[in-house]
Amino acid sequence: MSSLDDILKSRRDTRHFTTDEVPDEVMQKALQAGHWAPSVGLTDATRYYIIKSTEVKTAIKNLFLDYNKKAEELTDNPEQKELYRSLKLEAIEEAPIGLIIAYDRSVLNQFTIGTVGSNEAVKFSSVCAAQNIWLSLTEQGYGMGWVSILNYYQFKKILDLPENIEPLGYFCVGKPATNYNNQPMLQQLNWKQKSEAPTCSEIQNVNESSILETNTAISSKNNVLPDFSKLLQEKIDSKTKPLGALGTLETLAFQIATVFETLNPKITNPNIVVFAADHGIANHGVSDYPQDVTRQMVNNFLDGGAAINVFCNQNNIELSIVDSGVNYDFPTNAKLINAKIAKGTQSFLHIPAMSESEVQLCFDKGKTIVENIAKTGSNCIGFGEMGIGNTSTASVLMSLLTGFPIENCVGKGTGVSDEKLLQKQNLLKKAIDNYSDQAELMSQLAYFGGFEILQMAGGMLSAYNNKMLILVDGFICTTAFLIASKINPNIKENAVFCHCSAEQAHQKLLDYLDAKPILNLDLRLGEGTGCAIAFPILKSAEAFLNEMASFESAGVSRK
Amino acid sequence: MSSLDDILKSRRDTRHFTTDEVPDEVMQKALQAGHWAPSVGLTDATRYYIIKSTEVKTAIKNLFLDYNKKAEELTDNPEQKELYRSLKLEAIEEAPIGLIIAYDRSVLNQFTIGTVGSNEAVKFSSVCAAQNIWLSLTEQGYGMGWVSILNYYQFKKILDLPENIEPLGYFCVGKPATNYNNQPMLQQLNWKQKSEAPTCSEIQNVNESSILETNTAISSKNNVLPDFSKLLQEKIDSKTKPLGALGTLETLAFQIATVFETLNPKITNPNIVVFAADHGIANHGVSDYPQDVTRQMVNNFLDGGAAINVFCNQNNIELSIVDSGVNYDFPTNAKLINAKIAKGTQSFLHIPAMSESEVQLCFDKGKTIVENIAKTGSNCIGFGEMGIGNTSTASVLMSLLTGFPIENCVGKGTGVSDEKLLQKQNLLKKAIDNYSDQAELMSQLAYFGGFEILQMAGGMLSAYNNKMLILVDGFICTTAFLIASKINPNIKENAVFCHCSAEQAHQKLLDYLDAKPILNLDLRLGEGTGCAIAFPILKSAEAFLNEMASFESAGVSRK
Repeated sequence: MSSLDDILKSRRDTRHFTTDEVPDEVMQKALQAGHWAPSVGLTDATRYYIIKSTEVKTAIKNLFLDYNKKAEELTDNPEQKELYRSLKLEAIEEAPIGLIIAYDRSVLNQFTIGTVGSNEAVKFSSVCAAQNIWLSLTEQGYGMGWVSILNYYQFKKILDLPENIEPLGYFCVGKPATNYNNQPMLQQLNWKQKSEAPTCSEIQNVNESSILETNTAISSKNNVLPDFSKLLQEKIDSKTKPLGALGTLETLAFQIATVFETLNPKITNPNIVVFAADHGIANHGVSDYPQDVTRQMVNNFLDGGAAINVFCNQNNIELSIVDSGVNYDFPTNAKLINAKIAKGTQSFLHIPAMSESEVQLCFDKGKTIVENIAKTGSNCIGFGEMGIGNTSTASVLMSLLTGFPIENCVGKGTGVSDEKLLQKQNLLKKAIDNYSDQAELMSQLAYFGGFEILQMAGGMLSAYNNKMLILVDGFICTTAFLIASKINPNIKENAVFCHCSAEQAHQKLLDYLDAKPILNLDLRLGEGTGCAIAFPILKSAEAFLNEMASFESAGVSRK
Repeated sequence: MSSLDDILKSRRDTRHFTTDEVPDEVMQKALQAGHWAPSVGLTDATRYYIIKSTEVKTAIKNLFLDYNKKAEELTDNPEQKELYRSLKLEAIEEAPIGLIIAYDRSVLNQFTIGTVGSNEAVKFSSVCAAQNIWLSLTEQGYGMGWVSILNYYQFKKILDLPENIEPLGYFCVGKPATNYNNQPMLQQLNWKQKSEAPTCSEIQNVNESSILETNTAISSKNNVLPDFSKLLQEKIDSKTKPLGALGTLETLAFQIATVFETLNPKITNPNIVVFAADHGIANHGVSDYPQDVTRQMVNNFLDGGAAINVFCNQNNIELSIVDSGVNYDFPTNAKLINAKIAKGTQSFLHIPAMSESEVQLCFDKGKTIVENIAKTGSNCIGFGEMGIGNTSTASVLMSLLTGFPIENCVGKGTGVSDEKLLQKQNLLKKAIDNYSDQAELMSQLAYFGGFEILQMAGGMLSAYNNKMLILVDGFICTTAFLIASKINPNIKENAVFCHCSAEQAHQKLLDYLDAKPILNLDLRLGEGTGCAIAFPILKSAEAFLNEMASFESAGVSRK
């Protein structure tokens, strides 16, 4: 076979192989073809692993079976399920050679051309290599099948691949036992028909509305009736308990009634929104976790397995998940609110994390998200976040906005060692030094950024305007509150500080804000978990105000 | 050019083009090559957009310039920066054709083969199409350059691409003006050298440690296995959160599982028991409220109007009310447990509050009440009390049992004035002086008494024997715990200290017991309200242990 078009056309995703061996020369020629593939910024990050061992193949086959079962359960349609079951989707044990094509993401630790917009370019280079190998094998009369139905975490574990090596999948290589009638196997089996021709259209104009509009109107609420507060305090004091004996619950009840402007306040459709985004600063090793954990945790939120899911379920709180700027393309998912600004911020070590127009976009998106939640009838919103590296962002912003030295604003985040803490501190100090001291808020926010932090700040401002209770979670969320309160100090009227985190800077920040947190449980998880855990206490405050008997109604003597 | 290897080898990421047009047939042939690329699950998700408009090209060029500036600032090395600046990394305006290769992620909205492990497979199919197009153009004597230095969010906005269309980048297509000496441009310019050969190694064994992963779902029923604690800690640490990040909730989960002797603990039929009794000492004006309030409040409990009713309702806790010795004959009431010892104790100012046989009766009755509750299937019991004057009783008992001077053990109770506090203190000092200094516990308990306090102590001892969680409320309840722990120090294993009261002696007593309370809400109401308000936090601890995903099950990287 010599014509490129013939090779391209006859290349198949093969799942049926003969027992013929694959000669070493064939594999070598194919891997060389892979090596000729593009490599972004000449990063040369593609890595290959060969598997011939039956033991290893069996372990991978088991992994496939496990996930394939999961896949099968994804369809409700019984016919589709039956057809799916009948499909042969791998040849892990039969194919004589197993190939793993992977990329080494540690190349991103150095300065790399072509990855500033998206570091996926490194991954894409390896995919091009895979396609080259496929074509070369096809030309040589061999075939390859790409198996992606695997739990990649366990896949890496079985193979003992280093953390920084990311496999694209498991590739079965061998002599094809069929050509599927010159078409994709799934088409031959009537699973689907591939379209006749590529889908292509021409773009002739620039979208006009892509020019940003700005709007950060500060509003201040109408004042409540002059004697409302007096009536409210009388109601609280009439309950069958010594004056003030419910402590913080009384303060909370007073606040809730004041925010909702009624003596009989009722929290409706409470909602916790978790904003997730990636941070360029994470590339400098400020966290113990790889950046990919942000994406993994978003999936965990969507799958219902994270702490915040558990606590929201427990306390009947609606949970909303927002992609504020995770370094990953999530598939469309009705459960995920897409507010992506970019795939992570830039590292603020030398350059701004984002542009000022992106800051504005964050505020706008945060505002829209909260407005949409208010429209569902919610009057109580908790703010949570997820983002590897975001304690670093929060620390710097806290330092700049409060004037505290950075040492007082840095903590261990997800739990780094003392040594790493010192590194983190020095790195952030350097970043602040590199920043040329502009005291203007918007400039500071753009430089140090945090898509999720700024969307939270925008959301809080909107929650205030919508007369909602604002539940503030831990250190990062409180930093977002700090930003919002610099823009509109009145929002504190609506804010409930749910807990004091184990992150040492949080107590200092709460003191700075003169805020008294409800809980003190050494939590340092984020995700809005502090809001969810504290929520029943707000409900207790609401409940005693509405449901307890008064001295008069119960016939109990006042002192 | 016809040999596949020649095409693969001469394909270049081209940034220098002649002004020659690209004939439509060339583009069509190239797109057809793209269309022959693999498509996971036959999703057919690749989409193409052609750009010829100068206006659109200029807008994209500006986007590139914006991000390229950012990229340039990412290196500290001045030489590298200089070299970077000199590189030509795009040909957006010069290349006659702009091509956007994108994928439609809405295909994931339907059941799709091959995407359960990672939905990136859809994206990878489009990258394979890009490589095919590249090869086809090369074969036809044309070239392509992949530009990824873009803010993808704004890129989509400029092009007005729908939300679900994700571009891989901007591809410049045209007639190459150079072949870069048959090597990548970056190599020609000495930016980097590409390695001579692909990096490939063979994996011969399965990583053993991946098999040894413990299945923490195994529960142990009766005795605590020697390594139960280890398994339990492993289960807690396997949850998708940083180690220890749930702080007190983790300590609680550990305790609950240990008390219930299972890795999957479940709180069943939680019950709060309020023990009510009167105190002779109340006749000396130690409280602001008349003694009759004890009775009135018992009626309030029975009518459902008290704070403890509201909080138990809120949190689905069964409430039991016990007449331990109220100075009133209640009519028979199915909701009231009759455990009356007498109509209030004697005043301990000059004589013992009760006899030693009454002390024993209190312990017995307390024990029976708790045993009956355990028989209903409850494994979690909260202790509360009501009794005008009982902070005085508790203060004296605390002073005798801890050795702290009485001044440290007295507080304002339901809220007496400073003057009255001093009177109360002097009165209690006198009572202690009148007591002839017997160090024997039973004698001390009989002298200073408190029917409800001693019934609580007896109940706690029984709760421990019944492997129940013991929820300890405020100051008076903690004094009952102090008594019980003098009899059986092990009961602390089962005790959850629900809150620290505003009654100043409570903090001191908790410190003495080395007990860390869950809440700190300035409550000073009693009735078991602290237990009821803290209960959802115990449920949170239980819930995270049972319901959260593990790193393994969620596919999240551990650090």
